[in-house]
Amino acid sequence: SRAASLLPQLLLRRRPASAGAFALLARPASSASGGLPPLTTEIHPGIKRGAFSQLTDADVSAFEAIVGGDHVIKDADEVLSYNIDWLRICRGQGQLVLRPKTTEEVSAIVRHCNKRRLAVVPQGGNTGLVGGSVPLFDEIVISTSRMNSLLSIDPVSGVLVAEAGCVLEQLDREAASQGLMMPLDLGAKGSCQIGGNLATNAGGLRLLRYGSLRGTTLGLEAVLPTGQVLDCLTTLRKDNTGYDIKQLLIGSEGTLGIITKAAILCPARPKSVQLAFLGLDSFQAVLDTYRLARRSLGEILSAFEFIDSESMRAVKQNLGLSCPLGEHSFYVLAETSGSNETHDREKLDGFIESVMSMDGCATDGTVAQDAGQFAHLWSLRERIVESLLVDGYEYKYDVSLPLADIYRLVEHMRTRLDGRVIRTAGYGHLGDGNLHLNFTTPKFDAKVLELIEPHVFDWVRDRRGSVSAEHGLGLKKSQYIRHSKADFAVRVMAEVKRLLDPNGIMNPYKVLPDE
Amino acid sequence: SRAASLLPQLLLRRRPASAGAFALLARPASSASGGLPPLTTEIHPGIKRGAFSQLTDADVSAFEAIVGGDHVIKDADEVLSYNIDWLRICRGQGQLVLRPKTTEEVSAIVRHCNKRRLAVVPQGGNTGLVGGSVPLFDEIVISTSRMNSLLSIDPVSGVLVAEAGCVLEQLDREAASQGLMMPLDLGAKGSCQIGGNLATNAGGLRLLRYGSLRGTTLGLEAVLPTGQVLDCLTTLRKDNTGYDIKQLLIGSEGTLGIITKAAILCPARPKSVQLAFLGLDSFQAVLDTYRLARRSLGEILSAFEFIDSESMRAVKQNLGLSCPLGEHSFYVLAETSGSNETHDREKLDGFIESVMSMDGCATDGTVAQDAGQFAHLWSLRERIVESLLVDGYEYKYDVSLPLADIYRLVEHMRTRLDGRVIRTAGYGHLGDGNLHLNFTTPKFDAKVLELIEPHVFDWVRDRRGSVSAEHGLGLKKSQYIRHSKADFAVRVMAEVKRLLDPNGIMNPYKVLPDE
Repeated sequence: SRAASLLPQLLLRRRPASAGAFALLARPASSASGGLPPLTTEIHPGIKRGAFSQLTDADVSAFEAIVGGDHVIKDADEVLSYNIDWLRICRGQGQLVLRPKTTEEVSAIVRHCNKRRLAVVPQGGNTGLVGGSVPLFDEIVISTSRMNSLLSIDPVSGVLVAEAGCVLEQLDREAASQGLMMPLDLGAKGSCQIGGNLATNAGGLRLLRYGSLRGTTLGLEAVLPTGQVLDCLTTLRKDNTGYDIKQLLIGSEGTLGIITKAAILCPARPKSVQLAFLGLDSFQAVLDTYRLARRSLGEILSAFEFIDSESMRAVKQNLGLSCPLGEHSFYVLAETSGSNETHDREKLDGFIESVMSMDGCATDGTVAQDAGQFAHLWSLRERIVESLLVDGYEYKYDVSLPLADIYRLVEHMRTRLDGRVIRTAGYGHLGDGNLHLNFTTPKFDAKVLELIEPHVFDWVRDRRGSVSAEHGLGLKKSQYIRHSKADFAVRVMAEVKRLLDPNGIMNPYKVLPDE
Repeated sequence: SRAASLLPQLLLRRRPASAGAFALLARPASSASGGLPPLTTEIHPGIKRGAFSQLTDADVSAFEAIVGGDHVIKDADEVLSYNIDWLRICRGQGQLVLRPKTTEEVSAIVRHCNKRRLAVVPQGGNTGLVGGSVPLFDEIVISTSRMNSLLSIDPVSGVLVAEAGCVLEQLDREAASQGLMMPLDLGAKGSCQIGGNLATNAGGLRLLRYGSLRGTTLGLEAVLPTGQVLDCLTTLRKDNTGYDIKQLLIGSEGTLGIITKAAILCPARPKSVQLAFLGLDSFQAVLDTYRLARRSLGEILSAFEFIDSESMRAVKQNLGLSCPLGEHSFYVLAETSGSNETHDREKLDGFIESVMSMDGCATDGTVAQDAGQFAHLWSLRERIVESLLVDGYEYKYDVSLPLADIYRLVEHMRTRLDGRVIRTAGYGHLGDGNLHLNFTTPKFDAKVLELIEPHVFDWVRDRRGSVSAEHGLGLKKSQYIRHSKADFAVRVMAEVKRLLDPNGIMNPYKVLPDE
């Protein structure tokens, strides 16, 4: 059918810039006005500039000699966009942006900076959500945007090798031309870069199915804070020769070096994508349905998202979207991606039948029959953020919890904030144990924020959850690292940081708390 | 059908102790005699004992106070089995074995050893193939065998948490009771321990489908060489709070610490397993068939093994096994594991039809119709090692190479050794780029060995391959680390080692070359 043949394309189109990782944090009201965000140093007056050198004309000349004058940006207006993050909640005071083209240029720049003790910030697509990719003080921005060559794709092994500045969506298109797909998919795919994806260990919408970048990244090249090039750019699936040093770079958020190239293992592109939408009356039913989905859909399950009634109400009331099912406490989107449409459809039908016949599971459900329904059902999940903003001010959290605790946190906070907020809404990637927890008030309310933080982080800590499921720590959450990591583990991290970055020049003030 | 219902069980049974990782190295003739292998120090006289303390009675008393007298093994006969590796090619001179029950006991032991500068060797199931799990001199063996409690399995999230000494097969059985499976499968599963699997980043037969332990290990607890406990035992799929320190332990072969607990993400157990056996007339056809398998079998492909004609001849001539296909240059075993037998069978049939109709691809093929055929077809692959031993002496290599180079190495070596060997046989996990390369002579021939080593390692290095695809470096391959890793990467590894193990007590003489 026409609809069916559209589905693979829709899989790519149905996720606008507001979706995925970006669905977790709304653009704050201050940015809607279009004015400049305040300087980050004004918001965080406690953070003091490190003992770094000041940039001199001689430094600038040295950089011009390395990358060429055209790629040294000094103009304040031009530099500004590199100082402000995507959410427009951070503004740094960087004065210089360097746009190297090669690993050798990055190496020469960093070597110079390390010798001169000049602090730097690596920057990819600048789509991070925790203030990790922009300067705080006068750190030099090293942009990977010009390092955007696809180096190779092997259709037999499925291995793609690319420079760090390649945009994720572009790589996915190249992979598609070989019957492959990138193993990760984010709302920011149109501007995020693979180097930044790796530096932040981006999760995204396909993690449930294709696993984390720690498994799908085969090789990596990076410039360490001393300027030395760490070449681990293998394309081999199996290589047990020594410690896997590249894993330190993955998820280090640019604090241990600048990733310059990567080799990624790409799965085969699905030929069929199916979507079921279910109504359920308890969170236990959501968990039971997930277990059933894992068993009956097994190898083709590609997403399992849940939405609570408060979130659904926001989408209906605030955006006027219609829900094809009646009132339920919870809704689930279960997506399959496979290589055979007939088989996938049969599996999905079988899954739905079991769910419907299982006591206390789903009580209502529908399957997308065409591309329009497919897109509409996904919009009920993807437009939640937007709908919540209509309430006024939004307080947003992105946590991982053991599955059994996920919705308890929502209920606990709902009780705690009773009468003080318009709504407490919970939804997210159930398959990943990743909850998006949101509260709304007509306008910013410091008292509400005080009731939320650090209480919500403490609650997550007490259940061994993660205070940052997929966004990283950056500047904004680094003081909460001990909520999710043991003291001693943080000490080991700090020792690794000192080992690789003795002068502390690489993306300072980020990830690790100030000691 | 009865056969079909047997298949899931067969998946577990069809891999005897000789298969998988163990298929790569034969028990040397010397061990067949049943005598003791020579001391490793006699074979490697160049390796000098480190500046460690000598064990004293006071040390033994301290250990007895920690683990209890019953779990301090001093009797020379009893200690002997801990000194000899599975292949019986290494024999150490350890005098003491400690069998702690808890992380706290391991921590107390290691703390004492670090203070006293006593060298230790962590030992799990002692099934390693590169001499990494036994002492060389008088290192104290710390066995994890008594730390064998399964701590939890969550049927919804699929997360299993276990102590390091749990045997892989036992864990897989426990997982099966919840509709899950362990994401790795090895020939040694009946005795290898999950802690050792992680310490060596074991690959095995399911890697093609379920990915590496770097992706499926969610959490880990380990005792570092200072005795401090690194608690990264999260069960979360997503947790981006700081550097992923646990990855350093995975694949460190016990040189950076002793893994004590692990949290593993288990996939759903397949309900159907299918097997196709194909004859092909060129290695290019093998590669083309693999590409086709990735595309048409996609999500259900669980193994793709190739066998060359020389290997097949050995199985037929030396073991009298029959091959259901005629003479071909290559044979392929393509296995599927899925959740729906009808669908899987249809996919497999479709794949075979495309392969047969594609010019220059497979020219002959069959599909296992019952459990007997299934087992017989697998035996043609799994009994190659055994069949080669019948020739006399076997020289065995386990390398990773870019797919295009895999069989070039076999052809190259066949030419190089022409007239000097009985046969040059190549087979392995094509899907993982993992070649098992074997040569046979009537008896050990030093001249042949000289023609092979280091030439074969150099050839692999020149193509950016890995000199150890899945076995690790241990004692036997540590001097070849620079063949697969850049100098600077090895230096960083050495620095990490010094950082975590300042006294060098943790499994000395292994992985990193002596500087």
